[in-house]
Amino acid sequence: MEDITISKAVIRRLPRYYRYLGDLMNEGVERISSGELSERMHVTASQIRQDLNHFGGFGQQGYGYKVEYLYHEIAKIMGLDMASHMILIGAGNLGQALAKYTNFRTRGFLIEAVFDKDPEKIGQAVYGDMKVQDIAGLEEYIRTHQVDIAAIAIPKEQAVPVADRLVKCGVRGIWNFAHTDLAVPDDVIVENVHLSESLMGLSYRLKNSIREKK
Amino acid sequence: MEDITISKAVIRRLPRYYRYLGDLMNEGVERISSGELSERMHVTASQIRQDLNHFGGFGQQGYGYKVEYLYHEIAKIMGLDMASHMILIGAGNLGQALAKYTNFRTRGFLIEAVFDKDPEKIGQAVYGDMKVQDIAGLEEYIRTHQVDIAAIAIPKEQAVPVADRLVKCGVRGIWNFAHTDLAVPDDVIVENVHLSESLMGLSYRLKNSIREKK
Repeated sequence: MEDITISKAVIRRLPRYYRYLGDLMNEGVERISSGELSERMHVTASQIRQDLNHFGGFGQQGYGYKVEYLYHEIAKIMGLDMASHMILIGAGNLGQALAKYTNFRTRGFLIEAVFDKDPEKIGQAVYGDMKVQDIAGLEEYIRTHQVDIAAIAIPKEQAVPVADRLVKCGVRGIWNFAHTDLAVPDDVIVENVHLSESLMGLSYRLKNSIREKK
Repeated sequence: MEDITISKAVIRRLPRYYRYLGDLMNEGVERISSGELSERMHVTASQIRQDLNHFGGFGQQGYGYKVEYLYHEIAKIMGLDMASHMILIGAGNLGQALAKYTNFRTRGFLIEAVFDKDPEKIGQAVYGDMKVQDIAGLEEYIRTHQVDIAAIAIPKEQAVPVADRLVKCGVRGIWNFAHTDLAVPDDVIVENVHLSESLMGLSYRLKNSIREKK
């Protein structure tokens, strides 16, 4: 059984551990103590030990963490050991940027189809030989392909009905860039990226000189 | 004096209040009780009262909140009553999408210059008559223009030295899309948008069926 009591804060830190461990591997570092990792990441060593203990604690007293082993374990925990099949709704500027972003692909997040309702966009090449499809064919596509995650990059008025269509077809993961909250059943996971709100948060902190804590 | 003890969680919720209040205004709603707002936002009424009390508490017993007034007060708190002058480093796919995103402009976040080091991109039009400038001219531009926020949308290896240059020129707000942490002095505010990490978080929650709490 997976432990589902892990706090959101720990989950949010996992990708950051993964990134630092990947950098260490690239530098040829084979093992690292929680103290050294702490210095690099500007997180306390006890926090690191606590966080990684949630996942079985891969460290050994006096030896530290095996970088490559821990990297792959965290990848497995996050589900990165298997490819995620993705579709993208919206071939506007942001959608195009997401479709072209090769970093996602190298981590196993594969955007395999792009949909839009704009006749001018339909048929256009987005990435390699992947062309924008008519959103009218969304249900048919999902019926005939594995879709783990749908990214939504369309205006907020259109996002709500599109999310409903995705959920009805059984899509369980939604990466939402639309500037609205999506109401979905309990077994559907939504991850929001609200860019305007991120910018407003920065504006607030600038105005009030509040530093983000790690 | 501003109260700087406000928790990160409250600050993160402010843009969401702002969004809901804006939607209410568009619907012609003039006032709303914390109870009604609670139902819409799926947040408890007591949380709403608590949150808004941080900022002086704009509600009146038995009357509720004046939507437009509260909307403008939150805008002021977040610094949205004054335009933010922005520059963008990186005219790749993501940079182009950010430069073209009109939602930022309507909220007073004005991207006024775009820089890149790629000779093929320099001189290209990005938005209206705004053209990509050579990043060699970054310091000169900042010396002669107000720059409140710099958005960084370049590969991580380049992001660290560019952030150093920005900080040396006195830029105090950095909106960082590069997949790395930036070490900056205490008086510089960095807001990170790590898209890959957001996707990994979604992947983790999908694998372990963890719903995001509001």
